[in-house]
Amino acid sequence: MKFLSCIFSLGLAASALARPATEKPNVIVVLLDDCGYGDFSHTGNPSIYTPNVSRMVSEGANFPQFYSASAACSHSRYGILTGRQPLRSGLKQWAIGPDEKRHIHVKEVTLAEGLKEQGYATAIFGKWHLGTPNEANGRTPDALPLAHGFDRWLGTNVSNDYEKGSDLVQGPSSGEGPALGYEYLARNIAMNVPLQEGLTKRYADAAVDFIREKKDQPFFIYMTPNMPHLPVHASDEFKGKSRRGLYGDCIQEIDHQIGRLRAALQEAGVEKNTLIVLSSDNGPWIRYQDTASHPMYAEARTLVGSAFPFRDGKASTWEGGQRVVGVWCWPGTIPAATVVQEPASTLDVLPTALALAGAKLPADRIIDGRDIRALLAASAEQKVEGFKLIYADSISVKAARFGPWKIHTGLTSQIEAKHGFTASEETPLLFQIEQDFSERIDRAAERPEKVEEGRAIISAFKDSLAKEPSFWDERKP
Amino acid sequence: MKFLSCIFSLGLAASALARPATEKPNVIVVLLDDCGYGDFSHTGNPSIYTPNVSRMVSEGANFPQFYSASAACSHSRYGILTGRQPLRSGLKQWAIGPDEKRHIHVKEVTLAEGLKEQGYATAIFGKWHLGTPNEANGRTPDALPLAHGFDRWLGTNVSNDYEKGSDLVQGPSSGEGPALGYEYLARNIAMNVPLQEGLTKRYADAAVDFIREKKDQPFFIYMTPNMPHLPVHASDEFKGKSRRGLYGDCIQEIDHQIGRLRAALQEAGVEKNTLIVLSSDNGPWIRYQDTASHPMYAEARTLVGSAFPFRDGKASTWEGGQRVVGVWCWPGTIPAATVVQEPASTLDVLPTALALAGAKLPADRIIDGRDIRALLAASAEQKVEGFKLIYADSISVKAARFGPWKIHTGLTSQIEAKHGFTASEETPLLFQIEQDFSERIDRAAERPEKVEEGRAIISAFKDSLAKEPSFWDERKP
Repeated sequence: MKFLSCIFSLGLAASALARPATEKPNVIVVLLDDCGYGDFSHTGNPSIYTPNVSRMVSEGANFPQFYSASAACSHSRYGILTGRQPLRSGLKQWAIGPDEKRHIHVKEVTLAEGLKEQGYATAIFGKWHLGTPNEANGRTPDALPLAHGFDRWLGTNVSNDYEKGSDLVQGPSSGEGPALGYEYLARNIAMNVPLQEGLTKRYADAAVDFIREKKDQPFFIYMTPNMPHLPVHASDEFKGKSRRGLYGDCIQEIDHQIGRLRAALQEAGVEKNTLIVLSSDNGPWIRYQDTASHPMYAEARTLVGSAFPFRDGKASTWEGGQRVVGVWCWPGTIPAATVVQEPASTLDVLPTALALAGAKLPADRIIDGRDIRALLAASAEQKVEGFKLIYADSISVKAARFGPWKIHTGLTSQIEAKHGFTASEETPLLFQIEQDFSERIDRAAERPEKVEEGRAIISAFKDSLAKEPSFWDERKP
Repeated sequence: MKFLSCIFSLGLAASALARPATEKPNVIVVLLDDCGYGDFSHTGNPSIYTPNVSRMVSEGANFPQFYSASAACSHSRYGILTGRQPLRSGLKQWAIGPDEKRHIHVKEVTLAEGLKEQGYATAIFGKWHLGTPNEANGRTPDALPLAHGFDRWLGTNVSNDYEKGSDLVQGPSSGEGPALGYEYLARNIAMNVPLQEGLTKRYADAAVDFIREKKDQPFFIYMTPNMPHLPVHASDEFKGKSRRGLYGDCIQEIDHQIGRLRAALQEAGVEKNTLIVLSSDNGPWIRYQDTASHPMYAEARTLVGSAFPFRDGKASTWEGGQRVVGVWCWPGTIPAATVVQEPASTLDVLPTALALAGAKLPADRIIDGRDIRALLAASAEQKVEGFKLIYADSISVKAARFGPWKIHTGLTSQIEAKHGFTASEETPLLFQIEQDFSERIDRAAERPEKVEEGRAIISAFKDSLAKEPSFWDERKP
């Protein structure tokens, strides 16, 4: 494979470095929260200025067909950390609240665990949202990041909009905060405006410290800002800085902190040893009016993102739910200004990162993601076979993408809009999603063979769910 | 002015060149036809790959708030060539057909005339659409480019969709084609598919020849491809090359030809002496269904562009009608990867280019555009005062933009959609167009003082029209 030989030759050429740039590269995943595809300079936003992300695009690879694993938070985060389709999690709900008994199961193999086993130092700075120790689960520490491969955590257990239970937590510590080994830094941050305003910087500070501390060994940082999830906040330094109002200020602050991470990598001399992946857990909140008078969301009608040119937003099975920014930057290895025209998803992060680290994928379970190293080579013609995407709500499959096609067997919309269509298993919709990315022209009647192919993919996926139930269900200890 | 001192110091530093890079720089304006804001890689299109335009963005300045002078063809072309608001033209119609008596008046001072007077060689390669010699005007050569400052022309007199009258014409020549001094190369090109398929390349070939021929003197090239105006065509080399179908193939071919122009400049050693401006005459065609069975438009439902994130398209006074791509590239003078956050328009091209050439603006008429050289400096904070935009249909004002605000006193839509709003002079709409660029939240009731400001701008503009009628009306010879 061309890309691998490129890796090896670069590895030899870079032997003056303490560690060859492509041998067990550091991995940084920046996963934003509810950020829309269209919320960046490089995706055409006319009012938000994101020069640091643009620089990643011009120095790295942009994926204009990139998907989150799910259209909502917990499912999506499960997907990126396990490489497995979220319906395999057993979490049942798209977003699990702080009182939920279930969490990401300890038998799951996460990206942090896979990399840790290869000698990586691992940390998560930001939102977890894959479990909370609570009365229902006996305050188990299994619900939190240190039980899933992370050495260090500073962040919140759930989203920043839970009035009770959205706590700022640190671990490891000698405390007993939410569970043994953790301590609370603050409780119920949703109502604590100054704390929220400082969160983005606080996580970046922690990541910069971690880079400085761990620069001589491979490291993995999972940086997951709470923003721009509602309620949106920005620090004083960024308020009024954008032309897009507070929402834009918030994105521009995130962009600035991404610039700081890159500067820290450069300062530590490991910029060329580090793969950074930027994405979002799902599409944006797009409802304009109905939360305007909410005390926590304030004037939410303006504090929403842009999924354009895609339909709908977060929590929808239209493209706006899962089409998100996808930028992979690795100077010296990924050629500058690469545009990857093939579709890919956050499910591909784990297989790719584990391959780069020299680790094997767990063989005792289905991994839905693919090793996409070949896509990171220069050629816009490069392909990695096997892209498929399942769109689901909390419990059931609603659509599937295969090649350039998308079949809808049901419609889920944040704004409860069917956009003039109906879809069912009997009468599905079919879109050619590369030509008709705004999902306007139903081709089901014209292309019955593609409808059948889509049905078969959904059916095969359902079979695989039935044959291999989640660790919480048939497989529980 | 900071930018000017930068120009002068660069001029000195570059004295080894035959001509300092910033002294009477060459000017190339590439004006696409009906191309949408969202039809490029750098504006987020997921399926169209435009690496040459992206390279112009990363090496030059991107204007994410750029406007065409009008939402339709002839008016827009009048605006870019004169720097004057199209309602001053006296053309009455947005797009003038081949049988129309009126054309751009000979008393207008065009960009070509202004530059020619400064010693520039001038050429237009592509669509003119500012007049046709016909029975109504006595087959006057005043209707065509050579009467308006252009030394050379290869192109069509009107759009490529007129069944009769869309001719491929060349001038100067000894022929008597549409008028003395011109010759027909082909008649009625709309129905001539192979001819249409070759147009984009043919214009670029002519431009490359012109660059080679004129490289030792200042030159001005106005390259105006007929594409992606319906009927959309691409050459065999590009058919099937994009993931966006024929429409994307067509844009990718244009991108390729832009790359050829840049290569020709480099080969001629004048890349740093040349300012290139890329834009579109108006937003895209967005109607999906109603022309599908038309013999000329073929399956037009898929051959349309994307104005996302803006509402509506061509011939609309919603943003999709006039928000277009705006890229200004001038390596060595405009700093790389500049993002100009201020709004600007094609009306600003003439005052800026004439200032660069050392020419004065005509003093006997209103020029609506501004000299925006200061915006081409590095700082994202740079401003040029006085941005205003008038949105009109063929004969009357419908909206105005001033600062970040837009007032609608009437609504014109390509798809006849009011998007849930009504607007009149008595009850106008008001949008904060930088925060709410998709025009969703009417703030007229909240901000009566801005409504008054908008009304005053429209009123002052109407007064200026009344006081200085077009050369065709009160001023006619």
